[in-house]
Amino acid sequence: MALRGGIDLGGTKIEAVVVDEDSAVRGSARRETPRTGGPQDVVRELAAAISEAAEAAEVFPEELAGVGVGSPGEVDRRAGTVARAGNLPGWRGSFPVAEELGQKLGTQVRVGNDVRVAVEAERVLGAGRRYRSFLGVWWGTGIGGAVVIDRKLWLGLGSAGELGHTVVRLGGAPCPCGRFGCLEAYAGRGSMERRARRAQEKGAKTVLFDLMQKNKRDRLTSGVWAAAIERDDELAIRLVERAISALGAGIGSALNLLDLDAVVVGGGLGTRFGDDGARRIADAMLPHLFVDDRPPPVVVSELGDSGGALGAALLVA
Amino acid sequence: MALRGGIDLGGTKIEAVVVDEDSAVRGSARRETPRTGGPQDVVRELAAAISEAAEAAEVFPEELAGVGVGSPGEVDRRAGTVARAGNLPGWRGSFPVAEELGQKLGTQVRVGNDVRVAVEAERVLGAGRRYRSFLGVWWGTGIGGAVVIDRKLWLGLGSAGELGHTVVRLGGAPCPCGRFGCLEAYAGRGSMERRARRAQEKGAKTVLFDLMQKNKRDRLTSGVWAAAIERDDELAIRLVERAISALGAGIGSALNLLDLDAVVVGGGLGTRFGDDGARRIADAMLPHLFVDDRPPPVVVSELGDSGGALGAALLVA
Repeated sequence: MALRGGIDLGGTKIEAVVVDEDSAVRGSARRETPRTGGPQDVVRELAAAISEAAEAAEVFPEELAGVGVGSPGEVDRRAGTVARAGNLPGWRGSFPVAEELGQKLGTQVRVGNDVRVAVEAERVLGAGRRYRSFLGVWWGTGIGGAVVIDRKLWLGLGSAGELGHTVVRLGGAPCPCGRFGCLEAYAGRGSMERRARRAQEKGAKTVLFDLMQKNKRDRLTSGVWAAAIERDDELAIRLVERAISALGAGIGSALNLLDLDAVVVGGGLGTRFGDDGARRIADAMLPHLFVDDRPPPVVVSELGDSGGALGAALLVA
Repeated sequence: MALRGGIDLGGTKIEAVVVDEDSAVRGSARRETPRTGGPQDVVRELAAAISEAAEAAEVFPEELAGVGVGSPGEVDRRAGTVARAGNLPGWRGSFPVAEELGQKLGTQVRVGNDVRVAVEAERVLGAGRRYRSFLGVWWGTGIGGAVVIDRKLWLGLGSAGELGHTVVRLGGAPCPCGRFGCLEAYAGRGSMERRARRAQEKGAKTVLFDLMQKNKRDRLTSGVWAAAIERDDELAIRLVERAISALGAGIGSALNLLDLDAVVVGGGLGTRFGDDGARRIADAMLPHLFVDDRPPPVVVSELGDSGGALGAALLVA
């Protein structure tokens, strides 16, 4: 029986699974993503994580039919390389992840874009399996996206899915990408944190950064945002509302163009805010829908945190 | 040999063609769209136009393998009905165009959305035939759109292609659709005219409305806009720049989401401004592209005015 490996390489943690032919998890492991060093150090941790998961599944890594890696940055699926992964240490140029990790493990390795891999997992195993077409909205540090058309992930010339760089306000807020008015500039957790920090510097009261320190975080995680909102923190509430308003516009525009069956929301904040968040996104989207008498359902991803690793394993299915 | 009919039903004119199996035109006719009356009157003119085109092709209408109609408004392809066609006289409710016209002609009739039909013509016979995927941008009174994915028009749940209702400025200018900040609110010829009129009322100098009257028009046609720009009319230049800036954002957002092979620009203004307009749209789009080192070509539709009727004939191919 052919077991496969899947690794979700995130900015803070590495999640590895070994699955069987039905995508049932036979072993798993989790490690911290190195904060210093370079691609070599990250690949060493990837190897350690999948080896640990393989051990839990009682196989050797070289016995795996293959290992898939979902990665941030610019992924070249065919070449098996990852470039410009800003959230990973010392990772500017292109690095041959598939080749280097493959040599360490003694099996074939494929790499894919982290968001697309997670959306593919939802399509095959999760919330997307009921729909012929849907828009995946991955709400985290950035806003990732993916479009499923006729039950297939649409990649276009290779980079389709950049929903986060939908212009929702011409000449608007600066985006981490260097452009202006992108959805991500309003709704990405990174942009939300920058705005919260500026507001605090200007005298706004907020528990956001106290909660961050209390929880020993060095940035505003999804958990910190959720906790601040539970405490009725005005700044947090306002910034999340602003994010949802922008998400409504960006998602509404995508649906006007593509008239899809559904929207599947995932990512750190998407998962954290759950059904309530999905309902609020649906409400924010409705006023922008051109055909507004049959709005598509907005549902939360079903695989949550493990979707990335499960989807990565699908790269070698 | 099976001849087919195609009718482009526009707000000002009705264009009919009879084509052979290679889509070569064997006969054509043009009539004015009725300005008063109701759907029955429009359908009578449709029948007259295609009968005239058939006569030119030396066949009787009932000998045609079928007749396709590209129509504005809400088109239900399966039911063969058209509803809420605001630019046509007395046309609010749903009217069974396929049935009524079919009875008059003695052959089968199919109806399709005017923009999608024109884009389908470009896909099969025109500027789109070279591309696996492209975005059709129909720049006229409104902003129509259509998405070709894997050489097929993507309709989604039936209404895909509403590029004109991409939100380019959250909370922005009022759109004819009743929403705010849509691309069409900035770039639709109807919105441009309203803004020009308001500017003139507020004292702005412009030759736009003089040219309109001199050319015996009751609205600012594409020809009037082009003539005003040729005379260096500042208001016209400014409003066209504003439109192109909005088009750049809307098209850029669509490409970020779908990473398509090309953009095909058509419609009254799109055709009128031609290659120069396409170049300016490409320039306005570039700053919004997430992957900006290989911008897709922006090309002008090749079939121009006759694309609508040729595409309508494809409905019965």
